[in-house]
Amino acid sequence: MPETISLGTYLFERLRQEPIGLKSIFGVPGDFNLTLLDKIDEVDGLRWRGCANELNAAYATDGYSRVKGNASSSGLGFGALVTTFGVGELSAFNGVAGSYAEHVGTIHIVGIPSLDSQKKQLLLHHTLGNGDFAVFGKMSRNISQTEGVLDDPAHAPYVIDRVIREAYIHQRPGYLAFPANMVDVEVPKERLNEPIDLSIAKNDPSAQEEVLDIVLDLISKAKNPVVLIDACCARHDASKEAAELINVTNFKYATTPMAKGTKNIDESGRRFTGVYVGSLSYEDVKASVEESDLVLSIGALLSDFNTGSFSYSLNRNTVEFHSDHTKIRNAIFPKVAMKEVLHELVKLPKLKEATKNYKPVDVVNDPFEHEDQPEGLITQRWLWHRLSKFLKPRDIVITETGTASFGIIQTKYPKDVLGISQILWGSIGYTVGSTFGATAAAEETDPSRRVILFVGDGSLQLTVQEISSMVRNGLKPYLFVLNNDGYTIEKYIHGPEAEYNDIQPWDHKLILPTFGAKNYEAVTVGKAAELDELFKNEDFAKNDKIRLIEVLLDSKDAPQNLVKQAELSSKANSG
Amino acid sequence: MPETISLGTYLFERLRQEPIGLKSIFGVPGDFNLTLLDKIDEVDGLRWRGCANELNAAYATDGYSRVKGNASSSGLGFGALVTTFGVGELSAFNGVAGSYAEHVGTIHIVGIPSLDSQKKQLLLHHTLGNGDFAVFGKMSRNISQTEGVLDDPAHAPYVIDRVIREAYIHQRPGYLAFPANMVDVEVPKERLNEPIDLSIAKNDPSAQEEVLDIVLDLISKAKNPVVLIDACCARHDASKEAAELINVTNFKYATTPMAKGTKNIDESGRRFTGVYVGSLSYEDVKASVEESDLVLSIGALLSDFNTGSFSYSLNRNTVEFHSDHTKIRNAIFPKVAMKEVLHELVKLPKLKEATKNYKPVDVVNDPFEHEDQPEGLITQRWLWHRLSKFLKPRDIVITETGTASFGIIQTKYPKDVLGISQILWGSIGYTVGSTFGATAAAEETDPSRRVILFVGDGSLQLTVQEISSMVRNGLKPYLFVLNNDGYTIEKYIHGPEAEYNDIQPWDHKLILPTFGAKNYEAVTVGKAAELDELFKNEDFAKNDKIRLIEVLLDSKDAPQNLVKQAELSSKANSG
Repeated sequence: MPETISLGTYLFERLRQEPIGLKSIFGVPGDFNLTLLDKIDEVDGLRWRGCANELNAAYATDGYSRVKGNASSSGLGFGALVTTFGVGELSAFNGVAGSYAEHVGTIHIVGIPSLDSQKKQLLLHHTLGNGDFAVFGKMSRNISQTEGVLDDPAHAPYVIDRVIREAYIHQRPGYLAFPANMVDVEVPKERLNEPIDLSIAKNDPSAQEEVLDIVLDLISKAKNPVVLIDACCARHDASKEAAELINVTNFKYATTPMAKGTKNIDESGRRFTGVYVGSLSYEDVKASVEESDLVLSIGALLSDFNTGSFSYSLNRNTVEFHSDHTKIRNAIFPKVAMKEVLHELVKLPKLKEATKNYKPVDVVNDPFEHEDQPEGLITQRWLWHRLSKFLKPRDIVITETGTASFGIIQTKYPKDVLGISQILWGSIGYTVGSTFGATAAAEETDPSRRVILFVGDGSLQLTVQEISSMVRNGLKPYLFVLNNDGYTIEKYIHGPEAEYNDIQPWDHKLILPTFGAKNYEAVTVGKAAELDELFKNEDFAKNDKIRLIEVLLDSKDAPQNLVKQAELSSKANSG
Repeated sequence: MPETISLGTYLFERLRQEPIGLKSIFGVPGDFNLTLLDKIDEVDGLRWRGCANELNAAYATDGYSRVKGNASSSGLGFGALVTTFGVGELSAFNGVAGSYAEHVGTIHIVGIPSLDSQKKQLLLHHTLGNGDFAVFGKMSRNISQTEGVLDDPAHAPYVIDRVIREAYIHQRPGYLAFPANMVDVEVPKERLNEPIDLSIAKNDPSAQEEVLDIVLDLISKAKNPVVLIDACCARHDASKEAAELINVTNFKYATTPMAKGTKNIDESGRRFTGVYVGSLSYEDVKASVEESDLVLSIGALLSDFNTGSFSYSLNRNTVEFHSDHTKIRNAIFPKVAMKEVLHELVKLPKLKEATKNYKPVDVVNDPFEHEDQPEGLITQRWLWHRLSKFLKPRDIVITETGTASFGIIQTKYPKDVLGISQILWGSIGYTVGSTFGATAAAEETDPSRRVILFVGDGSLQLTVQEISSMVRNGLKPYLFVLNNDGYTIEKYIHGPEAEYNDIQPWDHKLILPTFGAKNYEAVTVGKAAELDELFKNEDFAKNDKIRLIEVLLDSKDAPQNLVKQAELSSKANSG
C-alpha cells in the first residue's frame, strides 16, 4: 500500500516546499474551513496567523508575499490566505484584487460547504439563499489569475499544483475552493517527492535574438541612455538582471514611484537619478530622464499615479522589457520575457563592446538635501527629508496611499531598503494589514530588519484592528501615524472644507494598550525637534518593541507632488 | 426654459422623497465620488454619515434600512450606501451580499471614473490595470436585484428611478454606477413632481380566489392551527396582515429565529407559543407547533440556522405565503403574493365563519421562567433570561451571529421590540456596523427607542472601528460585549482547543476613549449580581450616553440550542 496523506495536508506541504517556502498562513477561521486549518499544524515549520478580519488578512498576505519575494533567493514572493465561504471570501475581495492589480503572488483558499450539501442545494448559512454555491467562485474569477475547485479526489492534487503554479509564476492571486468534506480525503504522499514545476516558459529564440540585436544597436548609438526601473521588475524577478545591466553599462538609472525600494537597485548609488513621475518629478530628475536618447524601461506599469497622470515625455527610442513581451519603439515582440532576455543581454560580450565609447554621464544633483536643526512644527517637506537619515540598509518602509506614498519620493533610501506601497490599486487602509504580513515575513527571514509604516489618521481607521494581530504575534514594527485630521489627499482632489473629508479624532496613544500590548512605546510628536530627537535616539532605533508614533501635521500640508497630482485627478474626473 | 437640477441632486432628491424618505446616506469618500457627495447637502433634511470603512458602511446601511422599515408607515425599509470605484465597492461586497440574502432594501451607489477616462481605457488607480472598467459592476450583478450605469444624460433619470424602484419593491440591493463627470449633468426638475411608482404587481385574481377558497376550507377543518411567522413577513410588509390574521382567528402563533422581534407580532401576547427552530426548539414550543393540524407559514426563509438544520416536522397541511407566490401542500400558485392575499383573507366574512367552531388552544407554558437573585458568575442561561426584564417596548435588540443570536431565543420580548440579526448570511462583525445604522435611524424616527447590541469579543474585532462613527454622531447605543475569550460558536463546531479559535485579548474599557468619546460609560461585569444591579439601575436604563458593557463569560459556556446546532453543522461539513 502506498503511503497517503490527507488532501488538506498535501496543500500545506506544497506551500511549505521551497522555493515557495511559506512559513505562515493568514486568514480568519469560519465553520467551513476549520478542519482545513487543523492541517496546518501537521506541516513542519508552518504556522497559522489569524487576522482580525478577512480584508486585513488579504492585505497581510500581500505584504507577506512582497517581503518573501524580496528576501528569497528565488526572487518571487508568495503568500496564502484562508477564508470561509461567502462572508469570508467576499470580505477579502478588495485585498485580493489589489494583489491582482499590483502583481503580487498569493493563493486564496476558501473553505466551502461539503459536496453533499452542495448537491442537495441546501439553504445553508453564508449562502445567498438561492442554492447557488458557485456564485462566489464566479465572482472571484475576475480578480484571479487562475482558479480551481477540489471536487474530485483523483484530480485534486493536480488542481492544487496547477493553481499554485499559475499564481506563483504569474505573480497574481490563485483561487482554490476547498469543500469541507475533501480535507481528509487521502492522496498518495509520494507525489510530494516531485516538486511542482515552477519554471517559466522559455523565450522564442529567434525573436529574442532579433530583440538582442536591435537593443545592442540602440545602445551602441546612444550617448545618454537611462535605465528606468518600474514595479514589475522586482515582482517578476528581473531585478538582479536589471542591476547587472546598470553595472555592466554604467548607465544612469531611475525608478518610478511603484519601484522605489526595489531589490538590487541601489538608490544610494552614484548614478541613481531619482524617482521619475513625468511632469510631477523633481525638475532635475525630469530633465535627466527626458533628455536621455535611449530609455531602457524594465517592468513598466504605467498607471496614473505612477506616471504623473500619463505625463511621460520620453525619447521615442524606448525599449520596454515586460514579464511576457518586449516592445521596441512601436514593435511588440511577444514571448520575449524580460528576465531571460536581460539575462542574455548582460552576459553578451557584445554589450561591453557596444558601450565601450560610452562616457558615464554625471548624475543630477542630489534632490534630497534637507534642513537640519529644525524649528517649529513638523512639515511634510521636512519629515520626508529627515527620514532619509533615520533609515538603515535593509529596512522595510511601507507607505499608505496619500501624503505618505507621495511624500516618500523625497526620501533617500539606503541600500537594500524595500519599499511597499499600493500606487496602482490605492486602497486606503492597505498598509496596516500589509504591515502585519510584512513584519511576520521579516521575522521569519531576518528579524533585525525593521518594518516602518507611515499611515494617515484617516486610512488607519479602516483597518486599525490589525495592529492587534501584530501585538498578538509579538511583532515589533514602527507605526508612524500621520495625524493631519482627515483625508488630506481627498481634500486636495475635491472638497477642502467638506465635512465628508473629516474624520472622528482618536486618542492614538491608547490604541496599543486597547489591543492588549504590554511591552510597547506610544508617543505623540508635534514639533520637528521632538521627532528629530527620536530619530537620533539609539534605543528608539532598535526594533525591540512595537511602537506607535503619532506625528501631528497640518491638515492642509501635503507634499508638492501630491498637490499637483490631485489637480490632475480632479480635472480627469470632471472631463 | 424648464427648470433643471444636477443629476447628482436628482438622485438624492429621489431617495429623500416619501415613502422612501431617507434622511441619512452612508459610505466612505473616495476621489471618484467626492463631487457626488457635494450634492447631499443640497437636499433638505438629508445628511452624510461617513463610516470608518466600506464593509461597515454596508452593514450600517442594512441596519438603517431594517429600522426604517420597522418605523415607517409604508412598512418597507431602505438605505443608501455610497462607495468609490473598485477599492470601495469591493470592500462593501460582503455587506451588500448580506442585504441580498436577507431581503433588505438598499441602493449601492458607486462613484466611477468619468466616461471620458473609461473610453480612453486609461490605466487609472483603483483599476485592475487591464482597462476593464465594467468588471466590478459585473461582479456586483451577482449580489444585486438590479443594476444601472448612468452613461447617458437623456436616460439617466429613468435609470435612477428604475434601480430605486426595483430595489425597494424587491427589498434587495440595487447597484448604481455614477460616473464622476455625470454628477453635474442637468436634468429636468419637473420629473421630481411625479413620484416613482413603487406599487407592487397585483395578484392574479383567479389564482388568488382559488387560494382563498382552499385556505378557508383548510381553516374550517382545522382544530389546532398555528401561524408561523418568518423573516420575509416583515421584510415584505405583510406583518400587519399577519397580525390581523392572528387577531381575527385567535390562532396561536410562533416565530422562527429570523422573525423574532417582527413588527406587529406581539411576543408578549397570550397566544404566542415561542420560537420554533425544528428539533432545536424548546420541547413545549416544538410540541405546540408540530402537533398543529394546519400551519399557516408567512414569509418562510428555510435556512439551516433558521430551521434547526432543516429539522422541521410540520403537518402536511401547510400553507406557505411568500412574497411572490403561495404554496399549499405541494401546489405552487405563482403570482399570489402574501401581502395582497392575506389582506383579502382577513377581511373575508367567510373567515369568521370558518373559525366559528374553533376553540382557542391554551398556549404552552411560558418557557421564559428565570431565576432571580443571582449568585456567582454570569452564565449564558441566566443572561438571556434576565435580559427579558431589562427590555422595554420599542427597544431595538441587535444580536451578533454566535452565542448572542442563539441565546436571544430565550429572551422574552416586550411589545414592539425590533430584533435584528443575520441568521442566514451570518457574517460575523455585521452587528457593529448595523448598530451604527440602526441607531442613526432610531434617532431620526424616535430618539427614545433604545438600541441594544450584543456582540461577542471575537466578532467585535472585525468591525470595532464603527463604534467611532457612533461616537462621532453623538449616538447612544448600549454595546454589550460578551467576552468569552474567542470564537465560542466555532469552538463548538470544531476545534475547541485549537489556537485558531482564540483571539487577542483586548482592554475593552479603553475602546470608547480611544475613539474619542467624552460622555460615555464603560464597565466590566463578571458576576451576575453586578449585571443584575446594572439592569435595575434607572439611570442605566436611560439611553442618554453611549455605553459599553463588557460581560465576562466562560469560554465554553453557550446556549443549548447553539451547542446542538454546532453538532449538526459539524456533521454536515464532514458529510
